[in-house]
Amino acid sequence: MIKCDICIIGAGPTGLFAVFEAGLLKMRCHVIDALPQVGGQLSEVYPHKPIYDIPGYPEISAQQLVDKLMDQIKPFSPTFTLGERVDSFSRNQEGLFKLTTNEGSVITAKVIVIAAGLGCFEPRKPAIPNLSSFEGKGVIYLIKKPDELKNKHIVIAGGGDSALDWTIHLANISPHVTLVHRGDTFRGTPESAAKVYELAQQNKINLVLKANVVDLHGTAKLEKAEILDHSKNNLFIKADYFIPLFGLSPKLGPISEWGLGIDKNAILVNTVDYSTNISGVYAIGDINTYEGKLKLILCGFHEAALMAQSAFKLVYPDEKLTFKYTTVYGINPL
Amino acid sequence: MIKCDICIIGAGPTGLFAVFEAGLLKMRCHVIDALPQVGGQLSEVYPHKPIYDIPGYPEISAQQLVDKLMDQIKPFSPTFTLGERVDSFSRNQEGLFKLTTNEGSVITAKVIVIAAGLGCFEPRKPAIPNLSSFEGKGVIYLIKKPDELKNKHIVIAGGGDSALDWTIHLANISPHVTLVHRGDTFRGTPESAAKVYELAQQNKINLVLKANVVDLHGTAKLEKAEILDHSKNNLFIKADYFIPLFGLSPKLGPISEWGLGIDKNAILVNTVDYSTNISGVYAIGDINTYEGKLKLILCGFHEAALMAQSAFKLVYPDEKLTFKYTTVYGINPL
Repeated sequence: MIKCDICIIGAGPTGLFAVFEAGLLKMRCHVIDALPQVGGQLSEVYPHKPIYDIPGYPEISAQQLVDKLMDQIKPFSPTFTLGERVDSFSRNQEGLFKLTTNEGSVITAKVIVIAAGLGCFEPRKPAIPNLSSFEGKGVIYLIKKPDELKNKHIVIAGGGDSALDWTIHLANISPHVTLVHRGDTFRGTPESAAKVYELAQQNKINLVLKANVVDLHGTAKLEKAEILDHSKNNLFIKADYFIPLFGLSPKLGPISEWGLGIDKNAILVNTVDYSTNISGVYAIGDINTYEGKLKLILCGFHEAALMAQSAFKLVYPDEKLTFKYTTVYGINPL
Repeated sequence: MIKCDICIIGAGPTGLFAVFEAGLLKMRCHVIDALPQVGGQLSEVYPHKPIYDIPGYPEISAQQLVDKLMDQIKPFSPTFTLGERVDSFSRNQEGLFKLTTNEGSVITAKVIVIAAGLGCFEPRKPAIPNLSSFEGKGVIYLIKKPDELKNKHIVIAGGGDSALDWTIHLANISPHVTLVHRGDTFRGTPESAAKVYELAQQNKINLVLKANVVDLHGTAKLEKAEILDHSKNNLFIKADYFIPLFGLSPKLGPISEWGLGIDKNAILVNTVDYSTNISGVYAIGDINTYEGKLKLILCGFHEAALMAQSAFKLVYPDEKLTFKYTTVYGINPL
């Protein structure tokens, strides 16, 4: 069991900066994210794209911003549970929150901050009838431990950056990688597409274009993927793993059943401190809503600062909060 | 007369970032500041001090942040009136605001954004009986055009960074610089103090410690400064200019008489769009107040973003505002 002052749900830019604002006020944070790495959408969806509206950065790539934020919160030693989704929460007699993830991790906290962006990103699943029956038996949607795929027979499906980048990466650790794509051109960056064509020409990967995975076969676990091409040919490819990479679709997820005030898939908050209708639970960043709300990263930063002032009263009910400028007092590591 | 969509009062970080947020929405800004350079307190009060709580910058000096913000707003070609204070505003029949500065500059705008920080910084004046009668005749508080001081007889008073830095700078352009300080140690940075002692030893400046300027003499204009030292000796020093540099004290200034809702020297705003009680007039950054207000630079950035969305409706009443991410659409220069 992990104990902390504030449990932050969501490791995107707002969640990370909340660690900083909490840390300035001596509150220790634990951060949970359903994705296998920090950064939220920035790292998962558009890591290389430039952002132009972060104040003080005329231009910064999404991943660079995440890296800078990780540097900035380092003095406050946050801890992380990544690749797990918070499923439920309860409150004990002393008022402590207890959160449980889909993989059974348990975190206790005095305050919960929901900074979950557009919600959990759930993989878009292709329409293959027996797909779900092979989940955990060879079908995976997020690659958390690439090393486990070493020298395995891997079938990847998709035509975007994620499918291209993983094909290129996995070709380094296995000679049995097949990429299946329904089109004959890729949506991903031209450089990655060129690299994939090159790998195919060198016979380092097997590239099947204008085709779809239509069925999965195996007994105890996945053994073969069945592919149908546009000329109606059936192709059976040996597969220890089938990895459909058709992007992520955001869902509010289990949080929607916590009893929080919700409006159009976003959590209603009070703009004085970005608290929700449940005492001790705050919502900041893209997941909240209020009159005038803008889904901008810089707004999440402001919300994190005001939240921290309010959370302090719950974490340290007997202490008086004095407002201090970092320019005058610097940073005191936790 | 200068015409613009938005006239921003205050060129501190919030005022500068407001140019960016307005520019994204095709609104052209003019910025007025009473100080002779942009940056507000950051450039005037603590340019070399590090700030640790700008999101994405684990550490940045105040002046560096100002420089970055100036780069960021460059595509939107803001114009500036510096070293002038806005004294009054009126509204004409078409609803346009007309602002007039203490030096007679006139600006017309559809929207006014007050981002004046702690207010106008007014110089702290020493208690010399006839000081004000020599204002404009040799007594100056802000050095706007150092070149005019070339080879002049200059008496500076003060013991902080500003007095030290100007003494060092002016010693380069005039052999007749005197620094008068009531103590015998300086409050400014040790490096600057060491440099001043060195200049005095080399007879490049005249350094008078444990002494005060107590009287000014001259007929049409300043001719001499009278100095009294701690041993009660009177010293008369030839002076074309007397420059007391005892720091700046913030005042809300003429804005306090505009009929705005004020609470404890700050302007009351609505947190939906940071508008004031006067339609078309917004207040953002340290100068405003609302429940939960934190005087942080990062909060001013958020306020600027929400203000711009609201101001758009006044500047372009017939256009529909569509929200666009810079990551997707980039920046379109004005």
